[in-house]
Amino acid sequence: MGRTSDARDKILSAARTLIEQRGYTALGVAEICAAAGVPKGSFYHFFESKQALALTVINEHWTEQRRQWIELLGRDRPPLQRLRDLFEATETVQRVGQQDGGKVVGCLFGNLALELSTQADDVQRRLQEIFDAQIELIEKVVAEAHERGETAATVDTHDAARSIVAQLEGRVLFAKLLNDPGQLEAMWRNCLALLGARPLQEGAGSPR
Amino acid sequence: MGRTSDARDKILSAARTLIEQRGYTALGVAEICAAAGVPKGSFYHFFESKQALALTVINEHWTEQRRQWIELLGRDRPPLQRLRDLFEATETVQRVGQQDGGKVVGCLFGNLALELSTQADDVQRRLQEIFDAQIELIEKVVAEAHERGETAATVDTHDAARSIVAQLEGRVLFAKLLNDPGQLEAMWRNCLALLGARPLQEGAGSPR
Repeated sequence: MGRTSDARDKILSAARTLIEQRGYTALGVAEICAAAGVPKGSFYHFFESKQALALTVINEHWTEQRRQWIELLGRDRPPLQRLRDLFEATETVQRVGQQDGGKVVGCLFGNLALELSTQADDVQRRLQEIFDAQIELIEKVVAEAHERGETAATVDTHDAARSIVAQLEGRVLFAKLLNDPGQLEAMWRNCLALLGARPLQEGAGSPR
Repeated sequence: MGRTSDARDKILSAARTLIEQRGYTALGVAEICAAAGVPKGSFYHFFESKQALALTVINEHWTEQRRQWIELLGRDRPPLQRLRDLFEATETVQRVGQQDGGKVVGCLFGNLALELSTQADDVQRRLQEIFDAQIELIEKVVAEAHERGETAATVDTHDAARSIVAQLEGRVLFAKLLNDPGQLEAMWRNCLALLGARPLQEGAGSPR
């Protein structure tokens, strides 16, 4: 089975794919190990339980996604344009996932929030922290746009950031249900509307 | 076990509660029958499979929710006020659910969309129809508001209705994850922003 670190990585990678495709509850440790191509005995060498594995999958996915969000939202571009970049990158991620596996898998955090948050307290707490961190990253950019007078003057930046993340989760839900990444195309219009902002490089008018 | 119709109702009621609390995948037929207090043999008298039961739970829940939506959205009140009534009723449903079972259970359709839509084609199709029907019910009211000049002139009524339902699903996801029905309080502001509408009976200003 190669180096032990390989086995851990293989288990994590297989678990993430299986959780995205079929959720957490449906999976057993034996199946994860079979998909990873590692002996079942090695699982408990790396993870205390299936739930500990799920938390590690969540944390590694957030490490990766957070890096992408910080890169996109920290660019030297106008703030609203950076939000647009984030939505386009999210659509691309869903499109690539669909091309790879045939189906839009949606947002790992949203999926697990609905599947597990009434059952697994530590998963619930971690997902709360991750959504808070997403809201905070977006709020910084919204605050920049607000200072530049590019949002409605009355916008509450924290509330607006939360509304944008809620809209993103709702749109990703539709993308998964309809197996259509194009459901995310409206995010940009929705974001402008939620901020009371005007479209970039376009005349006055929608969505006001 | 009483009349057979009682047994069917008991199975449906137990299944809905268990699916709301723990999702579909985690449940077995034996557990559903135990919770319903009916012999396991009677299950297959009423339902071909667990998936057939899930579809019936979905359909019965939609029959009930659709009746409520039509009542609220068909009232003799200004259209935007009717949308507000709908959001308040949704918050109340989540609050009552929390009082009854200790936890916000969220939206049965959203939960199952994320849990099952990549796995069970007939559940996926039915949920697509239900969300389409929700969007259509909201679009009618948005179109009335649009005709009265109460939305931005440029609003696409269908697109706006879809955005409102997406925001509702995202907000319900937060309500479930945070076990806080108050996450739905922002729906009204979000809806006005998505429509480019002004608050009712209030001065100019937020959310524009």
